[in-house]
Amino acid sequence: MKLSQLAKETSAVIEQGSPELEITSAAGLDIAGRGDISFLANPKYTPQVKETRAGAVFLNGGVEIDRADIAVLRVKDAYVAYTLALRMFFPDRPVEAFVHSTAVIDPSATVASDVEIHANVVIGRHARIGSGVRIFSNVTIYDGAKIGCDTVLHSGVSIRENCEIGERCIIQNNSTIGSHGFGYARTEDKHWLKIPQVGRVVIEDDVEIGANCSIDCASVGESRIKRGAKIDNLVQIGHSCTVGEDALICAQTGLAGSSVIGDRVILAGQVGIAGHLKVGDDAVLTAKSATSHDVEPGKTISGIPAFDNRHWLRSTAAFRRLGELAQKVRDLEKRLLTLEKK
Amino acid sequence: MKLSQLAKETSAVIEQGSPELEITSAAGLDIAGRGDISFLANPKYTPQVKETRAGAVFLNGGVEIDRADIAVLRVKDAYVAYTLALRMFFPDRPVEAFVHSTAVIDPSATVASDVEIHANVVIGRHARIGSGVRIFSNVTIYDGAKIGCDTVLHSGVSIRENCEIGERCIIQNNSTIGSHGFGYARTEDKHWLKIPQVGRVVIEDDVEIGANCSIDCASVGESRIKRGAKIDNLVQIGHSCTVGEDALICAQTGLAGSSVIGDRVILAGQVGIAGHLKVGDDAVLTAKSATSHDVEPGKTISGIPAFDNRHWLRSTAAFRRLGELAQKVRDLEKRLLTLEKK
Amino acid sequence: MKLSQLAKETSAVIEQGSPELEITSAAGLDIAGRGDISFLANPKYTPQVKETRAGAVFLNGGVEIDRADIAVLRVKDAYVAYTLALRMFFPDRPVEAFVHSTAVIDPSATVASDVEIHANVVIGRHARIGSGVRIFSNVTIYDGAKIGCDTVLHSGVSIRENCEIGERCIIQNNSTIGSHGFGYARTEDKHWLKIPQVGRVVIEDDVEIGANCSIDCASVGESRIKRGAKIDNLVQIGHSCTVGEDALICAQTGLAGSSVIGDRVILAGQVGIAGHLKVGDDAVLTAKSATSHDVEPGKTISGIPAFDNRHWLRSTAAFRRLGELAQKVRDLEKRLLTLEKK
Repeated sequence: MKLSQLAKETSAVIEQGSPELEITSAAGLDIAGRGDISFLANPKYTPQVKETRAGAVFLNGGVEIDRADIAVLRVKDAYVAYTLALRMFFPDRPVEAFVHSTAVIDPSATVASDVEIHANVVIGRHARIGSGVRIFSNVTIYDGAKIGCDTVLHSGVSIRENCEIGERCIIQNNSTIGSHGFGYARTEDKHWLKIPQVGRVVIEDDVEIGANCSIDCASVGESRIKRGAKIDNLVQIGHSCTVGEDALICAQTGLAGSSVIGDRVILAGQVGIAGHLKVGDDAVLTAKSATSHDVEPGKTISGIPAFDNRHWLRSTAAFRRLGELAQKVRDLEKRLLTLEKK
Repeated sequence: MKLSQLAKETSAVIEQGSPELEITSAAGLDIAGRGDISFLANPKYTPQVKETRAGAVFLNGGVEIDRADIAVLRVKDAYVAYTLALRMFFPDRPVEAFVHSTAVIDPSATVASDVEIHANVVIGRHARIGSGVRIFSNVTIYDGAKIGCDTVLHSGVSIRENCEIGERCIIQNNSTIGSHGFGYARTEDKHWLKIPQVGRVVIEDDVEIGANCSIDCASVGESRIKRGAKIDNLVQIGHSCTVGEDALICAQTGLAGSSVIGDRVILAGQVGIAGHLKVGDDAVLTAKSATSHDVEPGKTISGIPAFDNRHWLRSTAAFRRLGELAQKVRDLEKRLLTLEKK
Repeated sequence: MKLSQLAKETSAVIEQGSPELEITSAAGLDIAGRGDISFLANPKYTPQVKETRAGAVFLNGGVEIDRADIAVLRVKDAYVAYTLALRMFFPDRPVEAFVHSTAVIDPSATVASDVEIHANVVIGRHARIGSGVRIFSNVTIYDGAKIGCDTVLHSGVSIRENCEIGERCIIQNNSTIGSHGFGYARTEDKHWLKIPQVGRVVIEDDVEIGANCSIDCASVGESRIKRGAKIDNLVQIGHSCTVGEDALICAQTGLAGSSVIGDRVILAGQVGIAGHLKVGDDAVLTAKSATSHDVEPGKTISGIPAFDNRHWLRSTAAFRRLGELAQKVRDLEKRLLTLEKK
């Protein structure tokens, strides 16, 4: 692709370099070669610009590089532009319409004609598989589940009874959608009485779920992941939770039951959310934080339990010298006692 | 079901409403409709009682609601009564006796006649499958494993060599029982020498294990999950651990090797237990806590490392203002110095 | 095996007991019987020596036991010697060369003749399976993946497109190698634009990976696990990470993207490593710690965020009494005020 066309497709202005330059792929600054376009978005990587072998680079407004031998495409958001370029160079492979002969599909299931169903897939009674769906090997779809158009399920995924997956979703390998919630009532003699888990999970359109996740069904009713939410690997979503639109949930985060995560919320890695909470829209919990209280919209909080991120930064800085602080207080007490005795 | 019969089955007293009222299902206060019975156990949900459309509600002794239009069933424990009602309205589906034609069962395996074995299940040499067992698709049972009567294994589960699962257990999707423990001896030249992992896992009766869990076999001997223990999703149980009867282990908790968890212990979400420890009966670790020391029976502990929960609450409250505290100590020091110089 | 031969194979000196003594197996002190050899490496277990029924025991230099009825093998490292003994008593089962009739192998794949391929394994286009490989049931190997000689893949494992696994690796059940990295660019209207994930994972020789792990492919380029690294269960390795030789990563640890973990690094359980970091060779992060900064080689750090382990121990000790400390500072302030007013 010529640099001029790439610029056009990414709403970029060519600031340096020939519009005729051929760009064949995109890659990070460290591994890019002469035919690649790269990007600089994080100032941490500015030193890599000096050494990169990339042929072109997307730059945000105001960022300058001291290299005349690299074409420069000026953009509003270098990371978005780079992503758009990557998406052009690596388009999704089109669906091949086939159902492998070893797939076991119940006769009562409804399967669109243009789907890709790999070996050993099992599809239960009254399940419905939409147009353009791709299901890799060893996936199990239980009775009554529904998979929306153009969705991809990777090998080892289980979709439990009556769950519903939207359109254009991607679920990575070995994830479980709709397993039983962790619900027990404690009897007088301290045994655990299982609460039936007969609800389901609804995943709306354009959701992505990583590998080895567990998203539990509701006891009664539904757990819901809303449009555009993105969930990383090894995440736990408890029963009856709601995850808001365009929320971002990083790896190994866990939500206990019945919590409501607002739109565009970001939960960084290994966060914990207790049960029956409300996390307001656009709130952020930083990595390894946990809350057992509601979170106001737009707040960034940290710690266990989590509180305002700026205060937490100050507290953790002081914590590093807490042993000295305790020693100093003991010293002050002695000196004060001496003064008092005078 | 008539209200009078429901009351009888749940040891409840009808305090308000007609004994002839028809109740057709059970649900939480927020989603219940006119034919449903609901419950109020957590005071946090008292406001929902005003707005619920439920036709009846279980209440604990002493709890009053200001609604004449809802039938009231007075019980000792509203949550247990609600659970019993749900279990009546949603009984387990009976086992259908079939072995799918694609299941691969070694001729040396012993399989009871009234089992439900779905597509692509693989059962190894000398494995034994008890009466009433239900095994969903794509489950792998290795050589010598034993599955007790009326147990359910969901799709994607792996049961490793010689492991033994008790009766009436439920294992959710994609969990691994009996994989190798993480055991290595460090050689003089700093390589890791694998310690053979030839033990097994024994899971006793009435245990439930969530989705995507890993329970490791012992190197020699066994790891054991005792009767009635309940384990949530994404939990790690290291080699040679013992989990006590009726213990409750919440999601994403991890046990290193050779620890012994007592009866009725509760480990909340994302807890960590170091190796070679003993957690006494009825102890509780709150969410995200971790211990590398033994825990006394009945204690509730918190933090990393964990200590008495009440002290921890006090410490975390002070932690929020630790930056100010450090500043105040610096100020006091200055003022003291001024006094000392007088 | 005679004690004399065992001593020879483990570079031990017989200090007590008959060289003719027959040893038939090895086990821990608590479960060993008369025919077993055991070991004492952790002083915590010294009391068990008094009660063990083991017939022989490996001891490090300087360690004495007060039992004349147990044979003593003196060694440099009792744990390594015990491991060597276990490996002799429990050798790996040899590969049985067979391909199960239900395995689905694409005609374009290259599969060595002496492999063990169990039921329902699916192997994609142009995949390559080396000599001596063992693949258990319900494994899925995507197009273009390569499995090195003598590697073992347990049931439920997924190896994604073009990933490469070295020789003598072991991957436990339900782990995912090469799923999509968690990469999105945020657009101006706050949606998440998926960044193509078209790189791969390379796992070098002698690596072990536990059950239910997720190791993401790079967006472009590769994620790499180097020779001899050992990874426990439920571990998350983000896209474009590098894990060094002989690194040890314990259960439920998570690495965000693009971090580089040095050789022989130890990450204990439930550790978190933020993105774009460098953890130096031989560094140690203790359990539940997290870092968002680079770590110097050889350092042991702890806490969230992590700092020097000795300082952290001091800070956590003071933290237990932080409520009292805050109270004491308030008291001191009052007393100081009284003095100042005089």
